[in-house]
Amino acid sequence: MRPNDRKADQVRPIKITRNYTAYAEGSVLVEFGNTKVLCNATVEENVPRWLKGQGKGWVTAEYGMLPRSTHSRMRREAASGKQGGRTMEIQRLIARSLRAVVDLEAMGEIMVTVDCDVIQADGGTRTAAISGASVAMADAFQHLVDGGKLKANPMKGHVAAVSVGMLGQDVLCDLEYVEDSAADTDMNVVMTEDGRMIEVQGTAEGEPFSHDDLMKLLESAKTGICDIVAAQKAALEQ
Amino acid sequence: MRPNDRKADQVRPIKITRNYTAYAEGSVLVEFGNTKVLCNATVEENVPRWLKGQGKGWVTAEYGMLPRSTHSRMRREAASGKQGGRTMEIQRLIARSLRAVVDLEAMGEIMVTVDCDVIQADGGTRTAAISGASVAMADAFQHLVDGGKLKANPMKGHVAAVSVGMLGQDVLCDLEYVEDSAADTDMNVVMTEDGRMIEVQGTAEGEPFSHDDLMKLLESAKTGICDIVAAQKAALEQ
Amino acid sequence: MRPNDRKADQVRPIKITRNYTAYAEGSVLVEFGNTKVLCNATVEENVPRWLKGQGKGWVTAEYGMLPRSTHSRMRREAASGKQGGRTMEIQRLIARSLRAVVDLEAMGEIMVTVDCDVIQADGGTRTAAISGASVAMADAFQHLVDGGKLKANPMKGHVAAVSVGMLGQDVLCDLEYVEDSAADTDMNVVMTEDGRMIEVQGTAEGEPFSHDDLMKLLESAKTGICDIVAAQKAALEQ
Amino acid sequence: MRPNDRKADQVRPIKITRNYTAYAEGSVLVEFGNTKVLCNATVEENVPRWLKGQGKGWVTAEYGMLPRSTHSRMRREAASGKQGGRTMEIQRLIARSLRAVVDLEAMGEIMVTVDCDVIQADGGTRTAAISGASVAMADAFQHLVDGGKLKANPMKGHVAAVSVGMLGQDVLCDLEYVEDSAADTDMNVVMTEDGRMIEVQGTAEGEPFSHDDLMKLLESAKTGICDIVAAQKAALEQ
Amino acid sequence: MRPNDRKADQVRPIKITRNYTAYAEGSVLVEFGNTKVLCNATVEENVPRWLKGQGKGWVTAEYGMLPRSTHSRMRREAASGKQGGRTMEIQRLIARSLRAVVDLEAMGEIMVTVDCDVIQADGGTRTAAISGASVAMADAFQHLVDGGKLKANPMKGHVAAVSVGMLGQDVLCDLEYVEDSAADTDMNVVMTEDGRMIEVQGTAEGEPFSHDDLMKLLESAKTGICDIVAAQKAALEQ
Amino acid sequence: MRPNDRKADQVRPIKITRNYTAYAEGSVLVEFGNTKVLCNATVEENVPRWLKGQGKGWVTAEYGMLPRSTHSRMRREAASGKQGGRTMEIQRLIARSLRAVVDLEAMGEIMVTVDCDVIQADGGTRTAAISGASVAMADAFQHLVDGGKLKANPMKGHVAAVSVGMLGQDVLCDLEYVEDSAADTDMNVVMTEDGRMIEVQGTAEGEPFSHDDLMKLLESAKTGICDIVAAQKAALEQ
Repeated sequence: MRPNDRKADQVRPIKITRNYTAYAEGSVLVEFGNTKVLCNATVEENVPRWLKGQGKGWVTAEYGMLPRSTHSRMRREAASGKQGGRTMEIQRLIARSLRAVVDLEAMGEIMVTVDCDVIQADGGTRTAAISGASVAMADAFQHLVDGGKLKANPMKGHVAAVSVGMLGQDVLCDLEYVEDSAADTDMNVVMTEDGRMIEVQGTAEGEPFSHDDLMKLLESAKTGICDIVAAQKAALEQ
Repeated sequence: MRPNDRKADQVRPIKITRNYTAYAEGSVLVEFGNTKVLCNATVEENVPRWLKGQGKGWVTAEYGMLPRSTHSRMRREAASGKQGGRTMEIQRLIARSLRAVVDLEAMGEIMVTVDCDVIQADGGTRTAAISGASVAMADAFQHLVDGGKLKANPMKGHVAAVSVGMLGQDVLCDLEYVEDSAADTDMNVVMTEDGRMIEVQGTAEGEPFSHDDLMKLLESAKTGICDIVAAQKAALEQ
Repeated sequence: MRPNDRKADQVRPIKITRNYTAYAEGSVLVEFGNTKVLCNATVEENVPRWLKGQGKGWVTAEYGMLPRSTHSRMRREAASGKQGGRTMEIQRLIARSLRAVVDLEAMGEIMVTVDCDVIQADGGTRTAAISGASVAMADAFQHLVDGGKLKANPMKGHVAAVSVGMLGQDVLCDLEYVEDSAADTDMNVVMTEDGRMIEVQGTAEGEPFSHDDLMKLLESAKTGICDIVAAQKAALEQ
Repeated sequence: MRPNDRKADQVRPIKITRNYTAYAEGSVLVEFGNTKVLCNATVEENVPRWLKGQGKGWVTAEYGMLPRSTHSRMRREAASGKQGGRTMEIQRLIARSLRAVVDLEAMGEIMVTVDCDVIQADGGTRTAAISGASVAMADAFQHLVDGGKLKANPMKGHVAAVSVGMLGQDVLCDLEYVEDSAADTDMNVVMTEDGRMIEVQGTAEGEPFSHDDLMKLLESAKTGICDIVAAQKAALEQ
Repeated sequence: MRPNDRKADQVRPIKITRNYTAYAEGSVLVEFGNTKVLCNATVEENVPRWLKGQGKGWVTAEYGMLPRSTHSRMRREAASGKQGGRTMEIQRLIARSLRAVVDLEAMGEIMVTVDCDVIQADGGTRTAAISGASVAMADAFQHLVDGGKLKANPMKGHVAAVSVGMLGQDVLCDLEYVEDSAADTDMNVVMTEDGRMIEVQGTAEGEPFSHDDLMKLLESAKTGICDIVAAQKAALEQ
Repeated sequence: MRPNDRKADQVRPIKITRNYTAYAEGSVLVEFGNTKVLCNATVEENVPRWLKGQGKGWVTAEYGMLPRSTHSRMRREAASGKQGGRTMEIQRLIARSLRAVVDLEAMGEIMVTVDCDVIQADGGTRTAAISGASVAMADAFQHLVDGGKLKANPMKGHVAAVSVGMLGQDVLCDLEYVEDSAADTDMNVVMTEDGRMIEVQGTAEGEPFSHDDLMKLLESAKTGICDIVAAQKAALEQ
């Protein structure tokens, strides 16, 4: 019933390519089916002004979509002169998710910025971005460890994210675009590798959802994230 | 233990003043303790361009904080030349929440814009805004019914929202500012009056939260929203 | 003949509510009839860069209108990305008026910003704003005196403002909206409490006005300002 | 005592050069001593949207200063991305002044835009701009009459402006920069050629001013404007 | 002597991957050595307003660099709120170059927009962009021919571009970043496939260049462009 | 055949007026026929931040057109909120051209900004601007030498620019507007006074141009620049 005969709680094929570009301290192309996001982690020895002198680090993120990553061309945000509300929402979510798995104090006064740029969009760009950014950030921290700038990697574990939704009575995991546009309820779940929650954002597009629905959505998300974390670990072991 | 001896699942004193200003079709000052938000609903016989000719209506919202609604003065967004990411996130949330309880088709080609301006902020401004905006919108629709522009009020029921959070092991309902800044996990829940969910947004500020924590937070939110809906109904009956 | 049987040189009922919000060092809701402006004075121990190191203080102001403070909704300036020309004109006028009654040298390197936000507009928002801001600023300075930051209040007296206009041959004081839109000539007068002038801004909307007209307008303004100063003093004595 | 032995109520040498540039329907370089403003009037057969279909015309104005028209270089407004508050105030004043002497209904659906660009600034740029713009606008209307687009020039007469100020006890007319910066009170007066007032804007920079001072300032302005109108008429007769 | 033992007039290895993304009517990843640019051509049945009703088409281009396409991270233009001068210069150059090989009249009222986004930058991004955009545009036109929207491809031939420069006395073709930063003179040449020139832009960074130098640079460019055109043709034949 | 019987390689009458305005350290009105550009050079003892502490100077330029310098009125860039792509391209070109003839190290930590504002446009505004800016900059440096701030003028010679184009088979020098709009190929050439090249920018508007065409264009440019340099020298000797 789902495209490519996917099962309800099955994530799309995940491909994580490290060192995708040459300059970033961590560079990952993450693919969830046809959704492709380039996640480049940059290390700078310079924290935001409001954090200076506290001995702590910071992790932030920016998100963008190439104008023709979508079916019809979107206006380039640089040309329209501002980032839209959706862009801001997403990059704030990515940044919070990443910070939740980093010991900012152990970082020292260093800033990591992860740029997540969508090359091709087929639903779930924000969750793919978070999942790929976690790997890019891990590589950036390892780069600092290898260079003697840090004693140990300050990440407490992986962070991964998935979207789940209800289509009629069915709970589906890792929605692609055609499913997403038809779904009544859409939920993004961000979890640590041990299955605890960092963010839960559920929205009823049509009918409100019940407590029972929410339970099923969370269950499905947990299953999906488990597979994503496995893909992250496999990528980092290569 | 909580300020003013509030119990863990007790919302702050709620005050809903209708017809607060003279011109808006619906005008509500909503107070959740020291948080005060002015919600003005405007009716315009003109839908956004992309909706024209479909016979459907639209509900949207804008949110702002007066510069000195907070402890220290914030920069005025009109002066800085753009709305920040937090503002955009919140006004999108308010608008989605309101649309979820309106039959847009029954509205006809009419647009309702609810301006939520924070006069004084003590935590929970977005949830107070949603709760007050629901009443302001109800008044605006009644105004259209009274004027013969609509046959019946197209609202399917009230929408209310509350923030809940975990402070250590305690689950607290309707956080005020001092509690909010100390909380590990913060969740905003938007529900219909019959207790179904429209939005659930939970964020771990420090430690990730467990499935068990989430259950407790939802429970507490449901209790709080019940009281808020009662206050909305009481206000509309006056 | 005027709404509510007002006499030609009679100002509307004035209500000045101090401590209207909780955080600002001076917080005043000023009402001239149906015109309601919230004036919040903020104290910061930090002057603009060009003034640093001179031992002098500064007073500035910002002005805004809530989108639905008017009969039909105005676009939110934060959303449109800039403050309009009228807003800039008014906030510059408010700031100059306030500075005219303050001994900036006696302030030390402190800045007072008065935010004047129009809750409801029925003509004369800028003059109400000046009149209310003077009281809010007085409270802010008193707060500094009480806290031992200043030895004495650096205000040399009150400043108040009123609009006057000509409707045909009649000179009217403190125009409300319906009068203002019909007036041929509109003049805003800002005076000190002893009746000397700080600003005089007269504009012929239709026919130019004569020297004789100007004399009558000034006379009327003086009468009105006298009443406003009385209301300011009464408010500060409570 | 004044620079170049000017008398207190004497305006600077006025030079009005018509047809200064080649393309504008009216093009005037106006010089008040060392203050030089280029006023170009453009005719467009297209009124603003809100005026369409009413058979009326519109007159508007824009104002700018070349970055090095002043002693030290000012930032170019096009580069900083917005027009400052002072610019907006001035261009609104110029436009209102011009409209006050035009019969907008007699214009038909035509728009005249007068661009006033300061080539060199030595005080009184806004009053020179108004005085020069009146001549440029007269030429633009004559151009329409000559081309058979209008039956008669819709101007009811000239409009001229001058700044006056108090330096200690002296009332000075047409202040140049060194006088302006030292003046306690500065007033811009815009009058029709028959001596009636269109705008009066007086500001106390230091001490407030008395009713008596205001009378003297108006008297001095009237004398100066008389000379400016004479220069306008002489220029148009050439 | 050059990196990777390149000869003076030898271009870097060129790789042109068609159908790189799924949605664009033409999608090409072009690689000149380590410089990688994604060129997506979008077809819209809608020309700019100023061209409407003339029966002609239009070709335009936009250019951007991913923030970490460079050695150190550049600020995201969407976040800074405007496109820089360099970006504007380059996207105007790309658009002019493409239009020079298209019969706009034969297109009909169709617009092609080519988005050139730099994934990785190692010198020559604008010339790689032009060379790749030509192929993407060819695919987009073929798409219109295949769909019956156009009778024939309106391209008159390929357009290709290369940068050449002088390093001391040496003339080098297709500069990579380390060469580009050291070069005295840098020239971008855009040619048709038959060797005629569309754009020549030469700039002396240090010493001015002589007529003789210019001749050598043009010669070298011609050689390089010959190889690039061969690669374009090979890619289109696959 | 050309307007005013100009020969193919003849530049328009050139007029260079120094000290055109009173405050700039170098102020030149340059006229190429009906094209008139005001070039004001400003000296500031303050280099851009990225250059601080290196003991070197900087030269930059800004360009603007008065709204009615053209046949029909252009929108004021300050009002539209940004400088267009053409403006940015031109001011970058002017700045590079000027820097190419200055020994930045010999300047010390000083910045020269040349504002080029077009009063009247009849083709070739950018080349007139460069040619006039060179003289304004020379005056500004001489001002520093005269004031004892510099030991010697750090300019290595004059820089001049001209536009050349092909109209059918004819090569024309210093195109005026009617020629420019009809030309197939348009080329701007910037040269030092000894005939070496700083910038060459040729663009085919219609048909691509051949190597032979390019040779003729360069030849024509050289002749024209020779005359412009003579005019610059004559102006500086007065």
